[in-house]
Amino acid sequence: MIIIGEKINGSIPSVSRAIANRDSQFIKELARLQAESNSSYIDCCASVEEEEEVETLNWLIDCIQEVTDLPICIDSPSQHSCVEAIRFCNKPGIVNSVSMEGDKIDTIFPRIANTEWGCVALLCGDDGIPNSVDDRMEIFEQIMTKTEEYSIDPSRLYIDPLVVTLSTDQDALLTFAECCRRIKKAYPDIHLTSGLSNISFGLPRRKHINKAFLVLAMQAGMDSAILDPTNSDMLGIIYATNALLKNDDYCLEYIQAHRDGVIGKSKAKKLSTR
Amino acid sequence: MIIIGEKINGSIPSVSRAIANRDSQFIKELARLQAESNSSYIDCCASVEEEEEVETLNWLIDCIQEVTDLPICIDSPSQHSCVEAIRFCNKPGIVNSVSMEGDKIDTIFPRIANTEWGCVALLCGDDGIPNSVDDRMEIFEQIMTKTEEYSIDPSRLYIDPLVVTLSTDQDALLTFAECCRRIKKAYPDIHLTSGLSNISFGLPRRKHINKAFLVLAMQAGMDSAILDPTNSDMLGIIYATNALLKNDDYCLEYIQAHRDGVIGKSKAKKLSTR
Repeated sequence: MIIIGEKINGSIPSVSRAIANRDSQFIKELARLQAESNSSYIDCCASVEEEEEVETLNWLIDCIQEVTDLPICIDSPSQHSCVEAIRFCNKPGIVNSVSMEGDKIDTIFPRIANTEWGCVALLCGDDGIPNSVDDRMEIFEQIMTKTEEYSIDPSRLYIDPLVVTLSTDQDALLTFAECCRRIKKAYPDIHLTSGLSNISFGLPRRKHINKAFLVLAMQAGMDSAILDPTNSDMLGIIYATNALLKNDDYCLEYIQAHRDGVIGKSKAKKLSTR
Repeated sequence: MIIIGEKINGSIPSVSRAIANRDSQFIKELARLQAESNSSYIDCCASVEEEEEVETLNWLIDCIQEVTDLPICIDSPSQHSCVEAIRFCNKPGIVNSVSMEGDKIDTIFPRIANTEWGCVALLCGDDGIPNSVDDRMEIFEQIMTKTEEYSIDPSRLYIDPLVVTLSTDQDALLTFAECCRRIKKAYPDIHLTSGLSNISFGLPRRKHINKAFLVLAMQAGMDSAILDPTNSDMLGIIYATNALLKNDDYCLEYIQAHRDGVIGKSKAKKLSTR
């Protein structure tokens, strides 16, 4: 499972304050904690006005790279900020995200074409998120045409079929999972990802919905998620699902994650972190 | 989801002591707590020597029936104790369990044939639990032959495909789920159940494995489980999975379970229970 740590995001009030005050210790601590919790990438979203975004991403990325070698997932609604921020990164990471909206894909794909950068691709277009599986798959096919045009290997793509809110759309998981299954069948090397917490928006005890979603999405082929890697309950569900689906020989990774303290407090972990 | 509350079981030390001391208040409290936590049945397992078992079951069943109208799930390794205990029950419940071992099924099925009693049927025989899906399904077919012979409607059966330990058998979930899918396809009205905690035996942080198992088993068609209904995290996962699989219109049952305090502490619940 490829975990993209989501904690450095300016839409979170404490992070927004740290950005405003240029509190580098706060950002570094978030980066360090996520690196210790089995993240594969550190998401970096400034969530500031576009005219300040590139400079802010530069500062954030510098903070992160001071404490970890993990690659960055550059997260911005602006394709231009994404493209600009690539040069601040020490190594190839992931651009988050393209879609079939406007000229996003034609701005970002040429920039990453001859690199090792990955890219999150959302199954939406100028008219928003399609309701049906077939309509989302049509957008997927358009994305794959662009991927071929720019000679980007499918293994560099992180397709996010998009999660809508379960309380208003009962097909939210079923649509997501069916997209996953069809995509994985056609392109076994493609990654499938999700910023999944939208599924439980507006519902009480959201953790139950998020966990059950994670299990069902992984069973459908999702092999990446954008989430809080310091949430040991979510990590525990990921390692457990991997083991149950026979992707973890004799539960060795599950047991190691326990020893590392990432799926529940262990004595060693308690002593080493604040 | 048909929840069979598992807490009144003499293999649990505190329950064993209560049985030895005939502490009826303790048993009644366990029954009451489970009835308040959305159980459909109260499992009743004496776990004493066979010569004391019928009398102990009688006492336990009387305790339970004093505080709740929920039907009993009579749980004993002895087919003779099961048959004897039926007469202590005020209403039809479930016999737990038959299998193709010895004369179990030919002792229990004639007794419940012309009643409304349900029955848990384990997919094992004289040689233990078969490893492969096909071998378990062969036992299933033998059970269905007996079911037909005694004119028991399939809807009265709770098939338990049996869960082995994941840490020693990586196919534990996959085998269980495939049996569920085949059985549900052939007999849509049959119930599928499991005393699932064996899946995580020997592993740390067992709750993660148990929860992920529950989600995957429900997706495969399991519609019943023998578990602790006062475990709000497990109940939360059950309600969440139901909603995600489109078995709960607009999450209304999920929201109601939250209001009732069964999927997490609510103020109302805190005030009403000890």
